[in-house]
Amino acid sequence: MDDDVLRRGKPTVHVEYDEAIALLAGDALQSLAFQLLAETRLADDPQRQLGMVKTLAAACGSRGMAGGQAIDLASTGKALSLPELEFMHLHKTGALIRASVLLGAACGESVDDAGHAKLDHFAKTIGLAFQVVDDVLDAEASTATLGKTAGKDARQGKATYVSTMGLQRAKAFAEELRRGARESLADFGTRARRLGELADFIVLREF
Amino acid sequence: MDDDVLRRGKPTVHVEYDEAIALLAGDALQSLAFQLLAETRLADDPQRQLGMVKTLAAACGSRGMAGGQAIDLASTGKALSLPELEFMHLHKTGALIRASVLLGAACGESVDDAGHAKLDHFAKTIGLAFQVVDDVLDAEASTATLGKTAGKDARQGKATYVSTMGLQRAKAFAEELRRGARESLADFGTRARRLGELADFIVLREF
Repeated sequence: MDDDVLRRGKPTVHVEYDEAIALLAGDALQSLAFQLLAETRLADDPQRQLGMVKTLAAACGSRGMAGGQAIDLASTGKALSLPELEFMHLHKTGALIRASVLLGAACGESVDDAGHAKLDHFAKTIGLAFQVVDDVLDAEASTATLGKTAGKDARQGKATYVSTMGLQRAKAFAEELRRGARESLADFGTRARRLGELADFIVLREF
Repeated sequence: MDDDVLRRGKPTVHVEYDEAIALLAGDALQSLAFQLLAETRLADDPQRQLGMVKTLAAACGSRGMAGGQAIDLASTGKALSLPELEFMHLHKTGALIRASVLLGAACGESVDDAGHAKLDHFAKTIGLAFQVVDDVLDAEASTATLGKTAGKDARQGKATYVSTMGLQRAKAFAEELRRGARESLADFGTRARRLGELADFIVLREF
C-alpha cells in the first residue's frame, strides 16, 4: 500500500511476508482487540464494557480509521487545504489514538462530562501532533539521509503538513499542539502524568 | 484477490471500484457488526451480550476467518487431503456462518448445553455444505457456460471438493450434509423451522 520498507529498523510485514499476509495479520489483530475487550473484566459494569466495544468499533469504521484511509486514497495527487488535511488525519490515525485514551479512562474511576471533554480534546490533539511530527520526520530524514528534500509522501503525491505549511511552521505547530495537549490535562493533576509524558513522547521523538 | 468479477449478476466491489476500496469496505462493515452488537440491546444481560462480541471476534480472527484465509493462501497450488480441505473451510467461511447461528441463538431463549452442542453441529455442517455446493456450482457453471471442465478455483490451482472427491461424490456429500444438519435440529421442533430451511437453501441453491 505504500513504500515503507522499514519500521523501527525492522522490515515491515508486507515486505518480510507479502501484502496479503500483512492485511490478514491486521484483520486478525483487530479482531483480537475486540476479543480482549469482550472477555477481560475491565469495568465493574458490563454495560460500560459494551460501551468500550462501541468506542473501539466506531473508531475503526467508516466514520473512523477506515473512512480516513478512504479519504487518503481519494486525495492522493491533490493539494489539500489545512482543514481537509486535519479532517483526514483526525480519522485515519487520530480515531484510534483517541479511542485508546478514552478506553484507558473508561477502565479507571468515573470521569465527569467536563473531564471527558478535556480528555477527548487531549486525545484529538496528540493524534494530530503524531501526524504533524510524522510528516516532519519524513521530510527531515530524507533530507539528511537520502539527499532529497522530501520523503515518501512527497514521492507519492500526498499532501503533508510540511508540503502544506512548510517545515518550520509544521515544527512550531507540533510544539503548539504539545502545549495544548498538556494544558487540557491540567485539572487532572498527577493522575494524568503518564498522558502528559505521552504528549511529550509523540512530539519530541526522533523516529 | 481472486478472479470473481460478478456476484449475483452484479460486478464485485473490487471490480466496480478497486481492491483497496473493497478491502476498506470490508473493514468498515466488520467494525459496523461489532458496533451494532455493542449498541443494540440484544439480550437482557449485558454480560451475555459481551459474550456475543467475543463469539464474533473469535470467529473473525486468527483462529477463525483470518486464519482460514491464511491457510488458503498457503495452500494454493498444493493438493490437499479431505481433512485439510475441511479444516481450511471450517475456518475460512465456516467460522462466520457458525457465529451467525450461535449469535442468533444467544438473542433468544436460553438453550442448554446439549442444545448448544446440537446448534453448533448444525452450524458447522451448513458451513461445510456451503463450500461443497460452491465448488460444485463453480465446476458445473463453467462446464455448462464456458465449455471448460473446471472453474476459477481449478484455474487458480486451488484444491476443491470437486477436485478432491470428484463431482458426483461432492454432490452426494452435500446432500448428506444437508440431512445431517436437519437431523441435528430434530429436538428443537418447529422452533428451528427457519434453520432447517436455511440448510435446504444452502444445498439446493443454483447460484
